[in-house]
Amino acid sequence: MATFTHPKTSLFGGARIPMPTATKSRTFAPFRVRMALQDSGPSIAVVGVTGAVGQEFLSVLHDRDFPYRSIKMLASKRSAGQKLSFQGRSYVVEELTGGSFDGVDIALFSAGGSISKEFGPIAVEKGTIVVDNSSAFRMQDDVPLVVPEVNPEAMEGIKAGKGKGALIANPNCSTIICLMAATPLHRHSKVKRMVVSTYQAASGAGAAAMRELEQQTHEVLEGKPVTCEIFQRQYAFNLFSHNSAVLPNGYNEEEMKLVKETRKIWNDKDVKVTATCIRVPVMRAHAESVNLEFENPLDEDTARDILKKAPGVVVIDDRAANNFPTPLEVSNKDDVAVGRIRRDVSQEGNYGLDIFVCGDQIRKGAALNAVQIAELLL
Amino acid sequence: MATFTHPKTSLFGGARIPMPTATKSRTFAPFRVRMALQDSGPSIAVVGVTGAVGQEFLSVLHDRDFPYRSIKMLASKRSAGQKLSFQGRSYVVEELTGGSFDGVDIALFSAGGSISKEFGPIAVEKGTIVVDNSSAFRMQDDVPLVVPEVNPEAMEGIKAGKGKGALIANPNCSTIICLMAATPLHRHSKVKRMVVSTYQAASGAGAAAMRELEQQTHEVLEGKPVTCEIFQRQYAFNLFSHNSAVLPNGYNEEEMKLVKETRKIWNDKDVKVTATCIRVPVMRAHAESVNLEFENPLDEDTARDILKKAPGVVVIDDRAANNFPTPLEVSNKDDVAVGRIRRDVSQEGNYGLDIFVCGDQIRKGAALNAVQIAELLL
Repeated sequence: MATFTHPKTSLFGGARIPMPTATKSRTFAPFRVRMALQDSGPSIAVVGVTGAVGQEFLSVLHDRDFPYRSIKMLASKRSAGQKLSFQGRSYVVEELTGGSFDGVDIALFSAGGSISKEFGPIAVEKGTIVVDNSSAFRMQDDVPLVVPEVNPEAMEGIKAGKGKGALIANPNCSTIICLMAATPLHRHSKVKRMVVSTYQAASGAGAAAMRELEQQTHEVLEGKPVTCEIFQRQYAFNLFSHNSAVLPNGYNEEEMKLVKETRKIWNDKDVKVTATCIRVPVMRAHAESVNLEFENPLDEDTARDILKKAPGVVVIDDRAANNFPTPLEVSNKDDVAVGRIRRDVSQEGNYGLDIFVCGDQIRKGAALNAVQIAELLL
Repeated sequence: MATFTHPKTSLFGGARIPMPTATKSRTFAPFRVRMALQDSGPSIAVVGVTGAVGQEFLSVLHDRDFPYRSIKMLASKRSAGQKLSFQGRSYVVEELTGGSFDGVDIALFSAGGSISKEFGPIAVEKGTIVVDNSSAFRMQDDVPLVVPEVNPEAMEGIKAGKGKGALIANPNCSTIICLMAATPLHRHSKVKRMVVSTYQAASGAGAAAMRELEQQTHEVLEGKPVTCEIFQRQYAFNLFSHNSAVLPNGYNEEEMKLVKETRKIWNDKDVKVTATCIRVPVMRAHAESVNLEFENPLDEDTARDILKKAPGVVVIDDRAANNFPTPLEVSNKDDVAVGRIRRDVSQEGNYGLDIFVCGDQIRKGAALNAVQIAELLL
């Protein structure tokens, strides 16, 4: 199987720190079957298969026994011709063209917004259901924006195998990770306002950014000048405001995704969100400090119980041992971890909570969520 | 001069990235003189002189031409006998004892809370004014808690050379850095509520924590198991909830310092503060994401103008170039840097702002602030 792997488990996370009930979310898939390659499954395509998220698509499809009768490996001309092994079979990476989607039921896209904008509509025209990881269509009214644990109803009626194409958007990684924890609480007591500060990993800027962080760290430790190709500043032993463009209102695009996508996913135009998005020198999992204001009271014990029962969420909240979620711990894991659950002392009564959330940016923040969407199409 | 130096400027910050008007706060000292060693100056003592903050005390005293007629280098028995060079003279580190403060006008303490609790009152008894960097006396009603740019009036009437001892507490580093930026805005429009998320450097846990972060980073890059002596987890390429004890209300001690010290420094029992304190793999400067709610309106342009004029504050807020404060940039600098100044879209009208603040934890967060307090004693 082709997967994006690194030998250094302590850099990218791994088995070193065991995480309780880390497999809980894997039972979410309502259509789980044991035989992945089967005639009754859909024909699928992975667009951008050689990228970090593309590779994680394959890893997640494998881990979840996603059924398929055929799979196409698609990428840019530059990567075409590369060989991939997946579930014991060999595949050749094909160049993405307008003809790539003939007979394809489901396509998982992660090749950047411009590729999605160009090829997404072509695929839909051919009857393919596109699950798109870019921001190209997220805020388009007729495109569902889905976190399967949160708003599966938004894609009701869209099913594979009917020959009818559709676009479904995968939300921004920070939004997914935040809402995995905030939604169960929102359902109980209605969130009025949310103040989010993020601690975002290198992976959100792609595999090259992860390599740059590693290279810069070597250079700093060796006393050499740092190489700045992806980011225009030193990233090693430093942090900086998210690299997305800053809009006229002073928010960067990443922050406004949190503001706008939350409203769309919760189908609540009135929910107030502000966010400050910061990149920290961590490899592949995001952390978020989330302050919540509720319309109805919610004490911290009830909140903890709600989160313990939430699908895809694991609670790590041991005050005595000072043990709370860390990005390293959730790296390569499916579940979003929540901790530091406490009554906000700056709000009256039980109308406010502070929580701290960590989730793997490549997995639940991108590939896993997209494959879960694809599972809802079966 | 004995200073705490490292050869790797890109790890610990340094001259690599110039910072605009970085020397602005140096003109703050109202009693600045050019000749440091002079008969008319006070006799001073530095307690904990071999530690990271102790060494920075010497560096700041030198940089600011602090006047003194004599200086005692005090530390634990273990460090006694070490030789130090300061401003061209040699000193031998003396063991801290009850007799150390005979004839000492001002003592700068940074040797931990238990040393402050034991020797602070002894020094005061001998007529010494103690500027204490620990948390031992901060919340004691009769002890001023001072950020010189914010509340110098709290120590009015306390002067060196009168033979009358006193305790003055240096606030927590996160509190100092936050209030340097929040106070000028508070004075204009009154802060009602503040939601703070911190990105705290290794230095706050001492020089050994900085060394552990460096060592762990080497180990991770080399694929070795990481050494965990200071923190019970991997710090390199990771982050975690602040290591201070978690209190029954679910906040850790660092967070409650921000809550309580803000009220005391602003002399405002009603100001509401919540904080989430996180350690990130950065060496010596803290960053803080601060969401502000105001009683009276304050638009972002006015806020920016106010901050540009604030002593000890530098505004780095270039939206077009995506250039905002970073911890590396403020490392070894006096000023606190503020950016990402924007109207909070989650609040009505101009009653809310988001800002992002960075400040050197050892310098303004500890040694510089203490020396500025000492300058007010002259």
